[in-house]
Amino acid sequence: MPLWLAACIGVAIWLLPRPDAVDPRAWRLLAIFVATIVGIIAKPLPIGAVAFVGIAATLATGTLTLAEALSGFTNGPVWLVMAAFFLASGFIRTGLGERIAYILVTLFGRSTLGLGYSFAASDLVLAPMIPSNTARAGGVIFPVLQSLARTVLAGESAEARRTRAFLTLSAYNATVITSAMFVTAMVANPLIVQIAAGQDVAITWTTWAVAAAVPGAVSLLVMPPLLYVLTARRAVMRADAPDAARAALRRLGPMKRSERVMATVAVVLLGAWIAGSSTGLDPTAAALMAVAALLVTGVLGWDAVAGDREAWNTFVWFATLVMMATYLGELGLIAWFTEQVKPLVGGVGWLTGFAGLVLVYFYTHYFFASMTAHVSAMYAPFLAVALALGTPPVLAALVLGFSSNLFASLTHYGTAAAPILFSGGHVPLGTWWRIGLIVSFVNIAIWVGIGAVWWRLLGLW
Amino acid sequence: MPLWLAACIGVAIWLLPRPDAVDPRAWRLLAIFVATIVGIIAKPLPIGAVAFVGIAATLATGTLTLAEALSGFTNGPVWLVMAAFFLASGFIRTGLGERIAYILVTLFGRSTLGLGYSFAASDLVLAPMIPSNTARAGGVIFPVLQSLARTVLAGESAEARRTRAFLTLSAYNATVITSAMFVTAMVANPLIVQIAAGQDVAITWTTWAVAAAVPGAVSLLVMPPLLYVLTARRAVMRADAPDAARAALRRLGPMKRSERVMATVAVVLLGAWIAGSSTGLDPTAAALMAVAALLVTGVLGWDAVAGDREAWNTFVWFATLVMMATYLGELGLIAWFTEQVKPLVGGVGWLTGFAGLVLVYFYTHYFFASMTAHVSAMYAPFLAVALALGTPPVLAALVLGFSSNLFASLTHYGTAAAPILFSGGHVPLGTWWRIGLIVSFVNIAIWVGIGAVWWRLLGLW
Repeated sequence: MPLWLAACIGVAIWLLPRPDAVDPRAWRLLAIFVATIVGIIAKPLPIGAVAFVGIAATLATGTLTLAEALSGFTNGPVWLVMAAFFLASGFIRTGLGERIAYILVTLFGRSTLGLGYSFAASDLVLAPMIPSNTARAGGVIFPVLQSLARTVLAGESAEARRTRAFLTLSAYNATVITSAMFVTAMVANPLIVQIAAGQDVAITWTTWAVAAAVPGAVSLLVMPPLLYVLTARRAVMRADAPDAARAALRRLGPMKRSERVMATVAVVLLGAWIAGSSTGLDPTAAALMAVAALLVTGVLGWDAVAGDREAWNTFVWFATLVMMATYLGELGLIAWFTEQVKPLVGGVGWLTGFAGLVLVYFYTHYFFASMTAHVSAMYAPFLAVALALGTPPVLAALVLGFSSNLFASLTHYGTAAAPILFSGGHVPLGTWWRIGLIVSFVNIAIWVGIGAVWWRLLGLW
Repeated sequence: MPLWLAACIGVAIWLLPRPDAVDPRAWRLLAIFVATIVGIIAKPLPIGAVAFVGIAATLATGTLTLAEALSGFTNGPVWLVMAAFFLASGFIRTGLGERIAYILVTLFGRSTLGLGYSFAASDLVLAPMIPSNTARAGGVIFPVLQSLARTVLAGESAEARRTRAFLTLSAYNATVITSAMFVTAMVANPLIVQIAAGQDVAITWTTWAVAAAVPGAVSLLVMPPLLYVLTARRAVMRADAPDAARAALRRLGPMKRSERVMATVAVVLLGAWIAGSSTGLDPTAAALMAVAALLVTGVLGWDAVAGDREAWNTFVWFATLVMMATYLGELGLIAWFTEQVKPLVGGVGWLTGFAGLVLVYFYTHYFFASMTAHVSAMYAPFLAVALALGTPPVLAALVLGFSSNLFASLTHYGTAAAPILFSGGHVPLGTWWRIGLIVSFVNIAIWVGIGAVWWRLLGLW
């Protein structure tokens, strides 16, 4: 009964002797926070319900006031994620996402390798505005992949099976990489920004996108040929995917007014986000205006917003975690923890120490079934240790942030998009894990090697 | 195209010469607020969408900061309504609401008049915890009514038709009265509490319930016989409703664990609300704990919470209106308006003036299709004028608050429960309006006459 387990762990921490330097409220909040994280990982209830119970626990125990306990619900990054969920719904409902994927298949899908690139490119186009890789890889790319797998790539020959495995892993690893490239490409990224802000490390939408651009682009370019060699071993099926895509586009008909409005709003919003550092327009404000534009033009129906179960679920857990992280910081627990860690890591150089931290952080993802659970459990203490080591703050926050996405390559359950793509049945389990491990080495090499040079140029260290 | 109409009205106010004493931000917010209210009344888009666009407008025009624009989402009363929505979902999904109605029919439903009382009693039991009369009268009572109408009360005789008309109007007017009796019985009541707080009038859950208890009880007792005389004219159908209800209860089977948990949580929560004034436990905190209890015990599924379209719709518009009302107050617009009104009403005694205000406020409901639209458009200025007249503050806020519910008796579209009950086809349109008007006289007589004595005893004036 993992619900009782979570509660017992919370009670145990509550009853542990509290160090004198720690505020009693901070200690109690820590107990509730840890119990909530255990609940999020063990999932006796859906994550939103666990978070809701966590809020109730802070109130029932008098640990936080009502205003404090509800404070996460006005948080800017939380509403950025909400707005992005609603925009994603617009991309999918108007059919624009699918159209983009099919157009890219007609352009680059002549060869099997090119097809892998078209999936990666589609995901990259959608990534800045769709904060759920489930929505991108599961909602947009997977249907296109399955439609090709059922038609031009059907059959039980070794070539057909290897081609489908290659395409599945291409789509999956592309979405893992694009997730790492934008604050708004994965739901836990704004949480990372919030946690970092709580430790006085400021990361804007633009900082993140610029720092990720070069290693991200290299990863996206390197991955398809790598996967091609590893899975298809050159023995691929020759299929006229562009022709199948053209047929699908004919079925979609000419671009609808709603798709044109959606595309315009998306381009303007992306521009506003990129220009945000100089214009001072908050990315959340820009995103809320974009959603309002979709509502006013009728491209997005209100029912799709009010009835977006996944968005409101995210709203509750995200706001709860942001709120708890904020008060653990404000009540001094993070500062106290950092003080405890400093003497322990005193002799270690920051480069060595930080490299070790990143590797531990990365490979513990084998034990997590969700990026969010992993980030909410481990990001804050790992960042605190990295800062105690003397790692340059923005570098530390970003590299742990990028790792928080790239680690999803490891397993077929590492993020919600994985089981969806795995469910296609095109990739044997052993292959998925073996290639996931190899991909993780390559990603680390690219992001640490080329990334380090790029970040030096940017002055991050 | 009412969307453009709303925008044009907003732009017109924006461009009007601003009185020197008014803060420029207050004036711009007034323009956006009025446009939002016009949108809520004219409904070019669902109310939540209009509110969302209103938030975006405050951001796009730089009238409010992001933190200000989102501030409504942590508001206590907003979350009280959300919690109550989730509790209501528990009442309905567990079948407890229906069971209560059937049990009351077996107890009091022997005569037709008694049946009218059983509906009123069922609604009263549910009212403190279900903030939507649509959910109570439409979701719980109406199905029971229809089930009786199709079986023991079927037929086209004048007696059968009159009996059904009597029962429909009993159910409707009962829910109108119970709405007026608790802050948590109607969604706009917490909005009223918020607006009043913005004008420095503090009303707690208990203040409202105690002040409404005596006139509410008298209204509930008087209404069934009144409606009986007016609609059934004593010529009613004799039917064994208790027997039909017993059959329905047999179909429901013995009380389930989920119903017992729901009932326990409801009783404890009601106790916590009633004791709130002395224990200091915030009603919102208590309600959130109650929802958490339902989640932990599995009585309420998380899907029912995250997927509660109506709750999240309410969340967005309610938070928006609270936010706008708060900043209209904080930026000094309400104070300025009161200053303007004071000299105009200088010669009028508060009793006369306030009576006139209440009557205008009450009967303008003919022009509104929603209590919320009416409250958000008119409550704040009417309260300000009442206070300028010198009306005792809590009395003014409560009487306008009670009126904000009782005025729904007038039409078959006055609140969302009305069209649902009207759709049963048991009451001719002319009858509904004629009796609605008579009921309004009787309610005003009871609430002003007996109410005045009771509120004097309570020291409210």
